[in-house]
Amino acid sequence: MSLSQLAPAYIRTIAPYQPGKPIAELAREMQLNEADIVKLASNENPLGISPKARAAMLQAMDELARYPDGNGFALKSALAKKFGVGLGQIVLGNGSNDILELAARTFLTPADSVVYSQYSFAVYPLATQAVGARGIEVRAVDFGHDLDAMLAAIEPSTKLVFIANPNNPTGTMCRPGDLVEFMEKCPATVLVVLDEAYTEYLPAEKRSDSLALQRQFPNLIISRTLSKAYGLAGLRIGFAIAAPEVADLMNRVRQPFNVNSLAQAAAVAALDDLDYLRETVRVNRAGMEQITSAFVRLGIPFIPSYGNFITFHVGDGPALNQFMLQRGVIIRPLASYGMRDSLRVSIGLTGENDRFIAVLEEALDG
Amino acid sequence: MSLSQLAPAYIRTIAPYQPGKPIAELAREMQLNEADIVKLASNENPLGISPKARAAMLQAMDELARYPDGNGFALKSALAKKFGVGLGQIVLGNGSNDILELAARTFLTPADSVVYSQYSFAVYPLATQAVGARGIEVRAVDFGHDLDAMLAAIEPSTKLVFIANPNNPTGTMCRPGDLVEFMEKCPATVLVVLDEAYTEYLPAEKRSDSLALQRQFPNLIISRTLSKAYGLAGLRIGFAIAAPEVADLMNRVRQPFNVNSLAQAAAVAALDDLDYLRETVRVNRAGMEQITSAFVRLGIPFIPSYGNFITFHVGDGPALNQFMLQRGVIIRPLASYGMRDSLRVSIGLTGENDRFIAVLEEALDG
Repeated sequence: MSLSQLAPAYIRTIAPYQPGKPIAELAREMQLNEADIVKLASNENPLGISPKARAAMLQAMDELARYPDGNGFALKSALAKKFGVGLGQIVLGNGSNDILELAARTFLTPADSVVYSQYSFAVYPLATQAVGARGIEVRAVDFGHDLDAMLAAIEPSTKLVFIANPNNPTGTMCRPGDLVEFMEKCPATVLVVLDEAYTEYLPAEKRSDSLALQRQFPNLIISRTLSKAYGLAGLRIGFAIAAPEVADLMNRVRQPFNVNSLAQAAAVAALDDLDYLRETVRVNRAGMEQITSAFVRLGIPFIPSYGNFITFHVGDGPALNQFMLQRGVIIRPLASYGMRDSLRVSIGLTGENDRFIAVLEEALDG
Repeated sequence: MSLSQLAPAYIRTIAPYQPGKPIAELAREMQLNEADIVKLASNENPLGISPKARAAMLQAMDELARYPDGNGFALKSALAKKFGVGLGQIVLGNGSNDILELAARTFLTPADSVVYSQYSFAVYPLATQAVGARGIEVRAVDFGHDLDAMLAAIEPSTKLVFIANPNNPTGTMCRPGDLVEFMEKCPATVLVVLDEAYTEYLPAEKRSDSLALQRQFPNLIISRTLSKAYGLAGLRIGFAIAAPEVADLMNRVRQPFNVNSLAQAAAVAALDDLDYLRETVRVNRAGMEQITSAFVRLGIPFIPSYGNFITFHVGDGPALNQFMLQRGVIIRPLASYGMRDSLRVSIGLTGENDRFIAVLEEALDG
């Protein structure tokens, strides 16, 4: 008997998550210089980390032989103040991936089901499968969430719904009124995880007031990350805001030291660096304009995006992706999302976007 | 209905892990200066981080807006070279807590049972309970693992055995020959997680050759950490060495970016810093001698320890712990381990140990 047979079938059939290819890996594979490679594959912040976060890390560095504060007192206090919630409503995560997984592991058993949308974030089905629960994937409309269909898909066994707003990898958004209506109609015994990893990129008038929604509907769990607009992907820090009894249970399942000390220190500083956040949004808006203009000029169809990335349709996605890799441009293939004819590019700095556009033109000319 | 009722009963009854009290927390509670507090509660390395690890972190800091390498290529390569194993045998963890939990989550269902020892690491029952499996706690002998009794306790439903060597919180060890015998008798379909968090503190002649054992018995999973002798507790980095098919499954369940970039960079450097490791072991040996001498002089019974900490018997543990806290000395109460009459102290620098001993004497005089 193979040892792998010891794991339950739902574990054995997990397909590993496909991360964006690291620069160092492409450099090894293609024998390129790392400095010549442009990575627009993981929706990272092209500005690099906030100077305030950097300073906070340097200060915290002397204490790294100590365990992190398992209760995250300083960071939770900063979050509580910023968002007007109680300390007991906060769950810190090793990135928001940890939050999504904690929601699944805290509430699901193999007897339960989970509703999420087609073309939505890969971690929802992964986290569902890893606990042996059943995923109910609801067909997307215009590559976005069909909230009415998701409501209708809820079964008696459904314990959790995942909603990404804006959605990754398609960049679509839910209108605030539609989300309110969804929560009003959703059974109070079904937990709704609202994944707002990209919320900072939304213009204010399109942003749902999720905190108000959470106060009104205790079955709502807000998931946020500091990996995107706050520029701390490499440090791993995300958080949930939830009803106290929900947060308490998730904190019991959470590994006591899941968030490292530097992430906690850097996050406190980054949350406070509003200049960096403003510049992030400005650079993203300019880059989005730059890339969509090029798509229009080149006649390439794309999905209008509210995130820091954009998905476009090219026919043979893997072929164009390979063409790009050979020329040192890393973007994201979407075949694992069932979108073989599409690719996703993250918005970079002007020069990085230029490079992507130039290689794209080269491919079209070829 | 309360929302917490949505979680399965085994989740609702999890008692959260009791971490060592952070210095900042005690300072807040007792209105003490942080600089006046001595923390000997979490088996941390009193030397602080390795200078090589620090330099590696500073170099990696510019890339923190990028996601970590989800495959951990550089760190796995360093580990593979150091331990003579294949890249495919390694699983990186967000601390070894993550490794212990991954073993549970990859292989266990609520139908399975897990064998571990009384007075062993708190995460074993926690990880077992969090997946709804049944824990079989085997009575300790002289506060250490009774390997024969653990063998006898294995049931048809048993999928996993946890063995800590040296054991935390009691500091006992398994003799190399006894471990070999255990593996020879253990069914090949039962996975054995050998938690070697403190192995670096063992004198060479008492250390099991766990790598050779792993080659011989593919059902053995070695768990290691860089939080103790390598001094990186605040960064969160541990790893498993296992059979390729076991490692592959654990890597599927693992969060793709579970280990942050700085932890990966620092770990590569720390693994290579043999001077730091030697000094760590030397300081620990001297401090252990210093503290056990005081115990002998004061007539305080203790459990001979092979780790970087020592457990001693005091009658009323919580009372002495409170006395110490009021005087700014943080050690570890063990009531949650069923050892209310004992306390655990981590070995610190000479001055820290002196401070602990002085407060202990003060308590005895009181």
